[in-house]
Amino acid sequence: MNRKGNVGRVKTKSYTFAEPPKELVLECQRTLGPVTLAYETYGTLNQDKSNVILVAHALSGDAHAAGYHEGDSTPGWWDVMIGPGKAFDTDRFFVICSNVLGGCKGSTGPSSLNPRTGKPYALDFPVITIADMVEAQRHLVDHLGIDKLLCVTGGSMGGMQALQWVASHGERVRSAIPIATALKHSPQQIAFDEVVRQSIMADPAWRKGQYYEQGQPEKGLAVARMIGHITFMSDQSMEEKFSRKLRNGQYNFDFVADFEVEGYLRHRGDNFVRRFDANSYLYITKAMDYFDLSGGRLIPNGKVPSTRFLVISFKSDWLYPSSQSQEIVRELKMKQADATYCELPSTYGHDAFLLEVEEQTTLIQHFLDKTFNGYRVAGSDET
Amino acid sequence: MNRKGNVGRVKTKSYTFAEPPKELVLECQRTLGPVTLAYETYGTLNQDKSNVILVAHALSGDAHAAGYHEGDSTPGWWDVMIGPGKAFDTDRFFVICSNVLGGCKGSTGPSSLNPRTGKPYALDFPVITIADMVEAQRHLVDHLGIDKLLCVTGGSMGGMQALQWVASHGERVRSAIPIATALKHSPQQIAFDEVVRQSIMADPAWRKGQYYEQGQPEKGLAVARMIGHITFMSDQSMEEKFSRKLRNGQYNFDFVADFEVEGYLRHRGDNFVRRFDANSYLYITKAMDYFDLSGGRLIPNGKVPSTRFLVISFKSDWLYPSSQSQEIVRELKMKQADATYCELPSTYGHDAFLLEVEEQTTLIQHFLDKTFNGYRVAGSDET
Repeated sequence: MNRKGNVGRVKTKSYTFAEPPKELVLECQRTLGPVTLAYETYGTLNQDKSNVILVAHALSGDAHAAGYHEGDSTPGWWDVMIGPGKAFDTDRFFVICSNVLGGCKGSTGPSSLNPRTGKPYALDFPVITIADMVEAQRHLVDHLGIDKLLCVTGGSMGGMQALQWVASHGERVRSAIPIATALKHSPQQIAFDEVVRQSIMADPAWRKGQYYEQGQPEKGLAVARMIGHITFMSDQSMEEKFSRKLRNGQYNFDFVADFEVEGYLRHRGDNFVRRFDANSYLYITKAMDYFDLSGGRLIPNGKVPSTRFLVISFKSDWLYPSSQSQEIVRELKMKQADATYCELPSTYGHDAFLLEVEEQTTLIQHFLDKTFNGYRVAGSDET
Repeated sequence: MNRKGNVGRVKTKSYTFAEPPKELVLECQRTLGPVTLAYETYGTLNQDKSNVILVAHALSGDAHAAGYHEGDSTPGWWDVMIGPGKAFDTDRFFVICSNVLGGCKGSTGPSSLNPRTGKPYALDFPVITIADMVEAQRHLVDHLGIDKLLCVTGGSMGGMQALQWVASHGERVRSAIPIATALKHSPQQIAFDEVVRQSIMADPAWRKGQYYEQGQPEKGLAVARMIGHITFMSDQSMEEKFSRKLRNGQYNFDFVADFEVEGYLRHRGDNFVRRFDANSYLYITKAMDYFDLSGGRLIPNGKVPSTRFLVISFKSDWLYPSSQSQEIVRELKMKQADATYCELPSTYGHDAFLLEVEEQTTLIQHFLDKTFNGYRVAGSDET
């Protein structure tokens, strides 16, 4: 089917697990519970549950990947890629997306109520890792009665989760599509994250994380997000979008926003504080910095992985440069994995995974076709 | 003479001019006065005053470019390049360096006393431009009785000043060596500067610039400087210096600095607030963003410039990429200027102009030799 449609009206659901006394044991050895994950699903689970695609979101994403919430005029964050006839074709596949552990969009995170105190966790929330996020997702997948995933995918931190699924539960992952991501953060990536955290924590309104009664550390969080946006775009995309265009046609000789790019960043920063929890930003960036599947940890136990891989990067992405995707591919090839790599020629920088629809769609559709057909044939043999 | 030495003990001098009623008229059309410039000189002015090199500093630099202040164990910011036998050989040349207008190291800037109020200017200080900085330097050069400059040079914003000297007073500039700089800031460079400014202004301790009685907006300024340091280094130099090395050998599962790169940035940020005025940071970054000598403004009046140029960039500098230096060279060649360009293969990023001594020295010595000899021959002809 080639028409491209929209999954239409959707609702976020939630699943709560890890109730005391059987709490989730985290990588830091602390326990956490109860744990709730907000999630959405699109498409229909087939009879043999062989058509499941798990989509993982990036830093500031959420469970709402496609379709429209009631009353909303903008769709989910990856709606261009998920829907009838799209890259992740909901006429064929059952797509799941959940908000990460540590997030602030319905899943348990630092802004959730700590059952021990009845108040938000704030910094009492344990430092979580990408592996912890994946472990929480595994509980959700188990709850939905799904054994194997046809595909785990995502861009940026979503790609890290896809890779972590392979490392933690490779036997349950038929294929993975990590996009614009890395096996580990470089010191430059850690540095940007650290400045982002420092910007939040420098705001006196942050109050060592205890701001929930008084309100967000708005200024620090806005600056943090502005830094992010610079790294998400490319030099070229900024040139194309803004050049040196002035808002008033002339210099103001003042510290208001002279240039359009300044106005854009301020606007993005200000918007962000209305939709994202500052502490979640701290926890999630930390999880990314801790992530490290280099040195043989991606495919741990010497055997040839059964997972197929499609690794995608974008030429102008300087935050997660192609060299990092090539490192993933090298690691996979060394373990004799079935891995395909493609660098797409975008000018959008890191944002490309959200914007470069056409070529990603072609690559992903072909890859999923082959994976799904091979899977079903293998599945038939077994029955 | 090939021995490389140090200029030894130096003192900063100062020159005050533009006393009312004859104040400096700035590009914003406001007037400013009195104006003081802090400056240092190294070497000896020759008989015909033909051996003068004007060195201009970058964002956070000052007049103290070489030698040691009494009691100091670290020399001036470009000591590796200025001294007997060095790139700017003080056995042959008379080197001048002044703190920029708008600075906080002895020159008039937002932290200086406003004679109308007896209090620091703060945001009553007019927004100054690179052209204003150069105009102030011209007053200093006139005061020293110097008509022509053998060379104007500097890295980063120092390179902008060198270019501005050519644009404003080309007939007084025998040669220019703009290093790791640009004809104008790209939107990405403006974006980084704007985030830096927002970080300072987001700190409540900034008090709309009126913090001089209470003390600096330390946290905002520290974050601003951390952002700067990321852009001054390269991905590769960070990898070589820090990799993913941990300060305690393991993850802390906390928001203290886990990685060495985090500790480095925090340290640099904290140090900076002790030595630099936050408002000066605002004014100087704004001056850089306003700078634009593209579109024929570098060599304004159609005639072939008499100034010789050596343009230097560094391969790993992503803040002022080589493409921007190539744009300078293209602009010069179009005006039939005598211009040489060299990209040096450094891994240090933008910091390279402070660190890559050997190759810069060779290039600059050869260039200055030729300029100086040609100059003296021409000078003899005239007399």
